[in-house]
Amino acid sequence: MTNISIAVSTAACPLCMEPGGLVIDQTSLWRVVRVEDANFPAFYRLIWQSHVAEFSDLSEAEALACMRAVTAIEKVLLSALRPTKINLATLGNVVPHLHWHVIARFDWDSHFPNPVWGAALRELAQPAQARLALSLQELDARVAAALQKLGAGLN
Amino acid sequence: MTNISIAVSTAACPLCMEPGGLVIDQTSLWRVVRVEDANFPAFYRLIWQSHVAEFSDLSEAEALACMRAVTAIEKVLLSALRPTKINLATLGNVVPHLHWHVIARFDWDSHFPNPVWGAALRELAQPAQARLALSLQELDARVAAALQKLGAGLN
Repeated sequence: MTNISIAVSTAACPLCMEPGGLVIDQTSLWRVVRVEDANFPAFYRLIWQSHVAEFSDLSEAEALACMRAVTAIEKVLLSALRPTKINLATLGNVVPHLHWHVIARFDWDSHFPNPVWGAALRELAQPAQARLALSLQELDARVAAALQKLGAGLN
Repeated sequence: MTNISIAVSTAACPLCMEPGGLVIDQTSLWRVVRVEDANFPAFYRLIWQSHVAEFSDLSEAEALACMRAVTAIEKVLLSALRPTKINLATLGNVVPHLHWHVIARFDWDSHFPNPVWGAALRELAQPAQARLALSLQELDARVAAALQKLGAGLN
């Protein structure tokens, strides 16, 4: 399948109007941003460029390209940070424009093992970012490099 | 790619020991169960049969088979229930054995628009299940039929 959704922007949708974070890399299909969250510094979001609500709105080729990019981010976080777990989610209850959360979780983080949307369980003595094995700039660069290796297309 | 992970069960892992819900369908790669949750009755879980922790532990062929099945469940929930949104997530902070949550969300449900792991926002006057357009048995049958159409393999 090679169908590509026509990019339709929706004026009321914040992810159609704004990048939604610090843009790390993008293609015609998706952009990847880093979310600035003090509790979860290694938090990336893949945002589908077209305004679609559900993962199943993608063609199979698009879904494959989407999950390849999500997986590429996950692999960088795993190798660079050795987190306790990766969390992946696409919810969209508030902003129903397809976006995937890719979040490195650590057994010492403010909410672990709760989801990031659950209750905090502890306060950190130092910023979470300071406990990462590398700077966010270096992490961003590694994520960008991994995404760029994927190429832009649907194959 | 045709590599298949060797099924390794881990004695301490509940998803290696137990089905983890009402089994709707299964192949050698995955099983799909319905989770019994009074607040979120249309809640299915795809559990990878082998004990792997992360989505990126799958080969690309396995990942494709996994997301095809997740998408098939999503499509049934969308067409049968007309929910406000589908939520997909693989977290595994508590049970690090790959499983995907596929949850139909409604603007009237107990937590909407919060994630199911967030704070409840309202109490329902009648059980959530009673507001679904069809019985859970009928929904299960439709999910099973959609999964069976996918076939069992990696192609």
